[in-house]
Amino acid sequence: MAHIQLPNEELPGISGLFTFRPETAVPLRLLAETLLRGNSILTSGERELIASYVSHLNDCHFCHTSHGAAAIAHLECDINLIDDIKQGFQTIPISLKLHALLNIAAKVQKGGKQVLVEDIEKAKLEGALDEEIHDTVLIAAAFCMFNRYVDGLGTWAPKENEAYREMGRRMAFEGYVRS
Amino acid sequence: MAHIQLPNEELPGISGLFTFRPETAVPLRLLAETLLRGNSILTSGERELIASYVSHLNDCHFCHTSHGAAAIAHLECDINLIDDIKQGFQTIPISLKLHALLNIAAKVQKGGKQVLVEDIEKAKLEGALDEEIHDTVLIAAAFCMFNRYVDGLGTWAPKENEAYREMGRRMAFEGYVRS
Repeated sequence: MAHIQLPNEELPGISGLFTFRPETAVPLRLLAETLLRGNSILTSGERELIASYVSHLNDCHFCHTSHGAAAIAHLECDINLIDDIKQGFQTIPISLKLHALLNIAAKVQKGGKQVLVEDIEKAKLEGALDEEIHDTVLIAAAFCMFNRYVDGLGTWAPKENEAYREMGRRMAFEGYVRS
Repeated sequence: MAHIQLPNEELPGISGLFTFRPETAVPLRLLAETLLRGNSILTSGERELIASYVSHLNDCHFCHTSHGAAAIAHLECDINLIDDIKQGFQTIPISLKLHALLNIAAKVQKGGKQVLVEDIEKAKLEGALDEEIHDTVLIAAAFCMFNRYVDGLGTWAPKENEAYREMGRRMAFEGYVRS
Protein backbone atom coordinates (compact mmCIF):
# COMPACT_ATOMS: atom_id res chain seq x y z
CA MET A 1 0.00 0.00 0.00
CA ALA A 2 1.25 3.47 -0.86
CA HIS A 3 2.25 5.95 1.88
CA ILE A 4 -0.77 8.12 0.98
CA GLN A 5 -4.39 7.20 0.21
CA LEU A 6 -4.69 7.02 -3.60
CA PRO A 7 -8.07 7.23 -5.34
CA ASN A 8 -7.25 4.09 -7.33
CA GLU A 9 -4.98 1.69 -5.45
CA GLU A 10 -4.88 -0.67 -8.41
CA LEU A 11 -2.96 1.68 -10.70
CA PRO A 12 0.76 0.87 -10.42
CA GLY A 13 3.74 3.21 -10.06
CA ILE A 14 3.34 6.79 -11.19
CA SER A 15 -0.15 6.19 -12.66
CA GLY A 16 -1.79 6.14 -9.23
CA LEU A 17 0.02 9.35 -8.27
CA PHE A 18 -1.21 11.06 -11.44
CA THR A 19 -4.81 10.40 -10.40
CA PHE A 20 -4.12 11.66 -6.85
CA ARG A 21 -2.81 15.05 -8.02
CA PRO A 22 -3.90 15.89 -11.59
CA GLU A 23 -2.39 19.43 -11.36
CA THR A 24 1.15 18.11 -10.99
CA ALA A 25 0.53 15.28 -13.48
CA VAL A 26 0.24 17.83 -16.34
CA PRO A 27 3.84 19.14 -16.31
CA LEU A 28 5.24 15.71 -15.39
CA ARG A 29 3.53 14.04 -18.36
CA LEU A 30 4.57 16.86 -20.68
CA LEU A 31 8.17 16.55 -19.49
CA ALA A 32 8.24 12.79 -20.16
CA GLU A 33 6.69 13.34 -23.61
CA THR A 34 9.19 16.08 -24.50
CA LEU A 35 12.23 14.19 -23.24
CA LEU A 36 11.39 10.75 -24.61
CA ARG A 37 9.29 11.39 -27.72
CA GLY A 38 9.95 15.06 -28.61
CA ASN A 39 12.50 16.34 -31.13
CA SER A 40 16.00 15.09 -30.38
CA ILE A 41 19.02 13.80 -32.25
CA LEU A 42 18.84 10.71 -30.05
CA THR A 43 16.20 8.18 -31.11
CA SER A 44 13.33 7.45 -28.72
CA GLY A 45 14.73 3.94 -28.35
CA GLU A 46 18.08 5.33 -27.17
CA ARG A 47 16.37 7.77 -24.82
CA GLU A 48 14.20 5.03 -23.28
CA LEU A 49 17.36 2.96 -22.74
CA ILE A 50 18.94 5.87 -20.83
CA ALA A 51 15.73 6.28 -18.77
CA SER A 52 15.53 2.57 -17.96
CA TYR A 53 19.26 2.30 -17.14
CA VAL A 54 19.18 5.25 -14.71
CA SER A 55 16.00 3.84 -13.10
CA HIS A 56 17.79 0.53 -12.60
CA LEU A 57 20.72 2.37 -10.96
CA ASN A 58 18.17 4.07 -8.69
CA ASP A 59 16.67 0.66 -7.88
CA CYS A 60 13.24 1.73 -9.15
CA HIS A 61 11.62 -1.45 -10.45
CA PHE A 62 8.53 0.22 -11.95
CA CYS A 63 10.43 2.80 -14.03
CA HIS A 64 13.27 0.45 -14.98
CA THR A 65 10.89 -2.20 -16.27
CA SER A 66 8.27 0.04 -17.90
CA HIS A 67 10.83 2.19 -19.74
CA GLY A 68 12.76 -0.97 -20.64
CA ALA A 69 9.52 -2.22 -22.18
CA ALA A 70 9.12 1.09 -24.06
CA ALA A 71 12.68 0.67 -25.41
CA ILE A 72 11.74 -2.86 -26.52
CA ALA A 73 8.74 -1.49 -28.41
CA HIS A 74 10.85 1.17 -30.17
CA LEU A 75 13.83 -1.09 -30.92
CA GLU A 76 11.71 -4.16 -31.74
CA CYS A 77 13.83 -6.40 -29.57
CA ASP A 78 13.38 -9.21 -27.09
CA ILE A 79 11.86 -8.95 -23.58
CA ASN A 80 15.28 -10.05 -22.27
CA LEU A 81 16.49 -6.50 -22.90
CA ILE A 82 15.00 -5.55 -19.52
CA ASP A 83 17.43 -7.86 -17.70
CA ASP A 84 20.26 -7.00 -20.09
CA ILE A 85 20.01 -3.34 -19.02
CA LYS A 86 20.68 -4.49 -15.44
CA GLN A 87 23.76 -6.35 -16.60
CA GLY A 88 25.20 -3.33 -18.39
CA PHE A 89 24.15 -4.11 -21.98
CA GLN A 90 25.90 -7.46 -22.52
CA THR A 91 23.76 -8.76 -25.37
CA ILE A 92 22.16 -5.80 -27.17
CA PRO A 93 24.62 -4.12 -29.56
CA ILE A 94 24.86 -0.43 -28.70
CA SER A 95 27.09 2.20 -30.30
CA LEU A 96 30.26 3.53 -28.68
CA LYS A 97 28.56 6.92 -28.63
CA LEU A 98 25.62 5.54 -26.63
CA HIS A 99 28.07 3.76 -24.30
CA ALA A 100 29.77 7.09 -23.59
CA LEU A 101 26.39 8.79 -23.04
CA LEU A 102 25.29 6.00 -20.66
CA ASN A 103 28.51 6.59 -18.72
CA ILE A 104 27.52 10.27 -18.36
CA ALA A 105 24.00 9.22 -17.30
CA ALA A 106 25.47 6.96 -14.59
CA LYS A 107 27.54 9.88 -13.29
CA VAL A 108 24.44 12.13 -13.21
CA GLN A 109 22.61 9.43 -11.21
CA LYS A 110 25.30 9.75 -8.50
CA GLY A 111 25.24 13.56 -8.56
CA GLY A 112 25.65 16.45 -11.00
CA LYS A 113 29.23 17.20 -9.98
CA GLN A 114 30.26 13.61 -10.70
CA VAL A 115 30.23 14.41 -14.44
CA LEU A 116 33.83 15.23 -15.33
CA VAL A 117 35.32 17.03 -18.33
CA GLU A 118 36.85 13.67 -19.34
CA ASP A 119 33.39 12.06 -19.49
CA ILE A 120 32.17 14.82 -21.81
CA GLU A 121 35.31 14.65 -23.96
CA LYS A 122 34.99 10.89 -24.32
CA ALA A 123 31.40 11.27 -25.55
CA LYS A 124 32.43 14.02 -27.99
CA LEU A 125 35.25 11.81 -29.30
CA GLU A 126 32.62 9.15 -30.06
CA GLY A 127 30.67 11.73 -32.04
CA ALA A 128 28.17 13.00 -29.47
CA LEU A 129 27.00 16.56 -30.14
CA ASP A 130 26.24 19.14 -27.43
CA GLU A 131 22.49 18.58 -27.82
CA GLU A 132 22.89 14.83 -27.28
CA ILE A 133 24.98 15.45 -24.16
CA HIS A 134 22.37 17.94 -22.93
CA ASP A 135 19.50 15.54 -23.52
CA THR A 136 21.35 12.66 -21.85
CA VAL A 137 22.05 14.72 -18.71
CA LEU A 138 18.48 15.99 -18.55
CA ILE A 139 16.89 12.56 -19.09
CA ALA A 140 19.16 11.02 -16.43
CA ALA A 141 18.35 13.89 -14.04
CA ALA A 142 14.61 13.61 -14.76
CA PHE A 143 14.61 9.92 -13.88
CA CYS A 144 16.31 10.75 -10.59
CA MET A 145 13.08 12.66 -10.01
CA PHE A 146 10.55 10.17 -11.40
CA ASN A 147 12.21 7.27 -9.52
CA ARG A 148 12.16 9.13 -6.19
CA TYR A 149 8.55 10.20 -6.74
CA VAL A 150 7.41 6.63 -7.43
CA ASP A 151 9.36 4.98 -4.58
CA GLY A 152 9.27 7.87 -2.10
CA LEU A 153 5.49 7.52 -1.92
CA GLY A 154 5.68 3.73 -1.69
CA THR A 155 3.66 2.87 -4.80
CA TRP A 156 3.29 -0.76 -5.87
CA ALA A 157 4.59 -2.30 -9.11
CA PRO A 158 3.97 -5.58 -10.93
CA LYS A 159 6.96 -7.93 -10.53
CA GLU A 160 7.24 -9.76 -13.84
CA ASN A 161 8.80 -8.22 -16.97
CA GLU A 162 6.02 -9.66 -19.13
CA ALA A 163 3.42 -7.59 -17.24
CA TYR A 164 4.99 -4.42 -18.68
CA ARG A 165 4.97 -5.36 -22.37
CA GLU A 166 1.65 -3.71 -23.28
CA MET A 167 2.38 -0.68 -21.03
CA GLY A 168 5.70 -0.21 -22.85
CA ARG A 169 3.97 -0.34 -26.22
CA ARG A 170 1.52 2.38 -25.15
CA MET A 171 4.29 4.55 -23.73
CA ALA A 172 6.25 4.19 -26.97
CA PHE A 173 3.47 4.69 -29.51
CA GLU A 174 0.65 6.56 -27.73
CA GLY A 175 2.97 8.61 -25.55
CA TYR A 176 2.85 10.19 -22.15
CA VAL A 177 0.27 12.93 -22.59
CA ARG A 178 -3.15 11.29 -22.60
CA SER A 179 -6.46 11.74 -20.88
CA MET B 1 32.62 27.27 -18.61
CA ALA B 2 29.72 24.88 -19.06
CA HIS B 3 30.29 21.40 -20.54
CA ILE B 4 28.34 22.44 -23.65
CA GLN B 5 28.43 25.63 -25.73
CA LEU B 6 25.57 27.83 -24.48
CA PRO B 7 24.18 30.69 -26.59
CA ASN B 8 24.56 33.05 -23.63
CA GLU B 9 27.45 32.14 -21.33
CA GLU B 10 26.59 34.98 -18.99
CA LEU B 11 23.28 33.54 -17.82
CA PRO B 12 23.89 31.55 -14.60
CA GLY B 13 22.61 28.12 -13.59
CA ILE B 14 19.51 26.79 -15.29
CA SER B 15 18.84 30.07 -17.16
CA GLY B 16 21.62 29.40 -19.69
CA LEU B 17 20.31 25.85 -20.24
CA PHE B 18 16.81 27.18 -20.90
CA THR B 19 18.15 29.31 -23.77
CA PHE B 20 20.12 26.34 -25.15
CA ARG B 21 17.05 24.09 -25.44
CA PRO B 22 13.76 26.05 -25.37
CA GLU B 23 11.71 22.88 -26.05
CA THR B 24 12.70 21.27 -22.76
CA ALA B 25 12.53 24.60 -20.91
CA VAL B 26 8.73 24.68 -21.37
CA PRO B 27 7.80 21.64 -19.21
CA LEU B 28 10.61 22.37 -16.73
CA ARG B 29 9.40 25.95 -16.14
CA LEU B 30 5.79 24.76 -15.90
CA LEU B 31 6.79 22.11 -13.37
CA ALA B 32 8.61 24.67 -11.17
CA GLU B 33 5.63 27.02 -11.38
CA THR B 34 3.13 24.28 -10.48
CA LEU B 35 5.21 22.89 -7.61
CA LEU B 36 6.30 26.16 -6.04
CA ARG B 37 3.52 28.64 -6.86
CA GLY B 38 0.53 26.48 -7.86
CA ASN B 39 -2.31 25.41 -5.58
CA SER B 40 -1.06 23.59 -2.50
CA ILE B 41 -1.82 23.42 1.21
CA LEU B 42 1.85 24.28 1.82
CA THR B 43 2.67 27.97 1.41
CA SER B 44 5.08 29.00 -1.35
CA GLY B 45 7.52 30.04 1.37
CA GLU B 46 7.46 26.52 2.86
CA ARG B 47 7.84 24.95 -0.59
CA GLU B 48 10.82 27.17 -1.46
CA LEU B 49 12.43 26.16 1.86
CA ILE B 50 12.06 22.48 0.93
CA ALA B 51 13.52 23.20 -2.55
CA SER B 52 16.46 25.15 -1.13
CA TYR B 53 17.16 22.58 1.60
CA VAL B 54 17.23 19.64 -0.83
CA SER B 55 19.46 21.65 -3.19
CA HIS B 56 21.86 22.26 -0.31
CA LEU B 57 21.90 18.51 0.43
CA ASN B 58 22.69 17.94 -3.25
CA ASP B 59 25.49 20.52 -3.00
CA CYS B 60 23.95 22.64 -5.76
CA HIS B 61 24.96 26.21 -4.94
CA PHE B 62 22.85 27.88 -7.65
CA CYS B 63 19.56 26.20 -6.69
CA HIS B 64 20.19 26.32 -2.94
CA THR B 65 20.90 30.05 -3.00
CA SER B 66 18.32 31.16 -5.57
CA HIS B 67 15.46 29.19 -3.98
CA GLY B 68 16.66 30.33 -0.55
CA ALA B 69 16.33 33.89 -1.88
CA ALA B 70 12.83 33.09 -3.17
CA ALA B 71 11.91 31.81 0.32
CA ILE B 72 13.27 35.07 1.79
CA ALA B 73 11.05 37.06 -0.56
CA HIS B 74 7.95 35.04 0.40
CA LEU B 75 8.68 34.91 4.13
CA GLU B 76 10.01 38.48 4.33
CA CYS B 77 13.03 37.41 6.31
CA ASP B 78 16.73 38.14 6.45
CA ILE B 79 19.35 37.16 3.85
CA ASN B 80 20.96 35.03 6.59
CA LEU B 81 18.22 32.47 5.99
CA ILE B 82 20.33 31.13 3.10
CA ASP B 83 23.09 30.10 5.50
CA ASP B 84 20.60 29.01 8.14
CA ILE B 85 19.17 26.44 5.72
CA LYS B 86 22.66 24.90 5.50
CA GLN B 87 22.82 24.70 9.28
CA GLY B 88 19.50 22.89 9.55
CA PHE B 89 17.21 25.81 10.44
CA GLN B 90 18.80 27.01 13.68
CA THR B 91 17.45 30.55 13.71
CA ILE B 92 14.25 30.68 11.64
CA PRO B 93 11.27 29.34 13.59
CA ILE B 94 9.63 26.52 11.61
CA SER B 95 6.67 24.39 12.64
CA LEU B 96 7.00 20.79 13.84
CA LYS B 97 5.00 19.78 10.79
CA LEU B 98 7.50 21.44 8.46
CA HIS B 99 10.36 19.81 10.40
CA ALA B 100 8.78 16.40 9.81
CA LEU B 101 8.27 17.20 6.11
CA LEU B 102 11.89 18.38 5.77
CA ASN B 103 12.94 15.04 7.29
CA ILE B 104 10.97 13.27 4.52
CA ALA B 105 12.57 15.56 1.90
CA ALA B 106 16.03 14.63 3.20
CA LYS B 107 15.18 10.94 2.86
CA VAL B 108 13.94 11.48 -0.72
CA GLN B 109 17.23 13.23 -1.53
CA LYS B 110 19.07 10.01 -0.60
CA GLY B 111 16.66 7.78 -2.51
CA GLY B 112 12.94 7.03 -2.76
CA LYS B 113 13.16 3.83 -0.72
CA GLN B 114 14.80 5.71 2.16
CA VAL B 115 11.37 7.11 3.10
CA LEU B 116 10.05 4.84 5.84
CA VAL B 117 6.53 4.34 7.20
CA GLU B 118 7.80 5.91 10.47
CA ASP B 119 8.78 9.11 8.62
CA ILE B 120 5.30 9.37 7.14
CA GLU B 121 3.61 8.60 10.46
CA LYS B 122 5.68 11.24 12.24
CA ALA B 123 4.60 13.86 9.69
CA LYS B 124 0.96 12.80 10.02
CA LEU B 125 1.22 13.04 13.83
CA GLU B 126 2.36 16.65 13.38
CA GLY B 127 -0.74 17.30 11.29
CA ALA B 128 0.56 16.80 7.74
CA LEU B 129 -2.13 15.74 5.27
CA ASP B 130 -1.60 13.30 2.40
CA GLU B 131 -1.45 16.16 -0.11
CA GLU B 132 1.30 17.89 1.88
CA ILE B 133 3.29 14.66 2.06
CA HIS B 134 2.78 14.17 -1.68
CA ASP B 135 3.92 17.70 -2.50
CA THR B 136 6.95 17.42 -0.24
CA VAL B 137 8.10 14.17 -1.87
CA LEU B 138 7.54 15.55 -5.37
CA ILE B 139 9.32 18.87 -4.69
CA ALA B 140 12.27 17.04 -3.12
CA ALA B 141 12.38 14.63 -6.07
CA ALA B 142 12.12 17.48 -8.59
CA PHE B 143 15.10 19.26 -7.06
CA CYS B 144 17.11 16.05 -7.35
CA MET B 145 16.47 16.62 -11.07
CA PHE B 146 17.03 20.39 -11.28
CA ASN B 147 20.24 20.16 -9.20
CA ARG B 148 21.69 17.40 -11.40
CA TYR B 149 20.71 19.26 -14.57
CA VAL B 150 22.43 22.48 -13.41
CA ASP B 151 25.62 20.82 -12.11
CA GLY B 152 25.76 17.89 -14.54
CA LEU B 153 26.25 20.36 -17.38
CA GLY B 154 28.80 22.39 -15.41
CA THR B 155 26.95 25.74 -15.42
CA TRP B 156 28.39 28.67 -13.48
CA ALA B 157 26.74 30.41 -10.51
CA PRO B 158 27.41 33.68 -8.65
CA LYS B 159 29.07 33.02 -5.27
CA GLU B 160 27.63 35.63 -2.92
CA ASN B 161 24.17 35.32 -1.34
CA GLU B 162 23.47 38.99 -2.01
CA ALA B 163 23.73 38.41 -5.78
CA TYR B 164 20.58 36.25 -5.61
CA ARG B 165 18.30 38.68 -3.80
CA GLU B 166 16.66 40.20 -6.89
CA MET B 167 16.50 36.81 -8.66
CA GLY B 168 14.68 35.37 -5.64
CA ARG B 169 12.19 38.23 -5.70
CA ARG B 170 11.42 37.59 -9.37
CA MET B 171 11.08 33.84 -8.80
CA ALA B 172 8.72 34.46 -5.88
CA PHE B 173 6.51 37.18 -7.38
CA GLU B 174 6.81 36.92 -11.18
CA GLY B 175 7.16 33.16 -11.21
CA TYR B 176 8.84 30.56 -13.35
CA VAL B 177 6.88 30.75 -16.59
CA ARG B 178 7.97 33.87 -18.43
CA SER B 179 9.20 34.78 -21.90
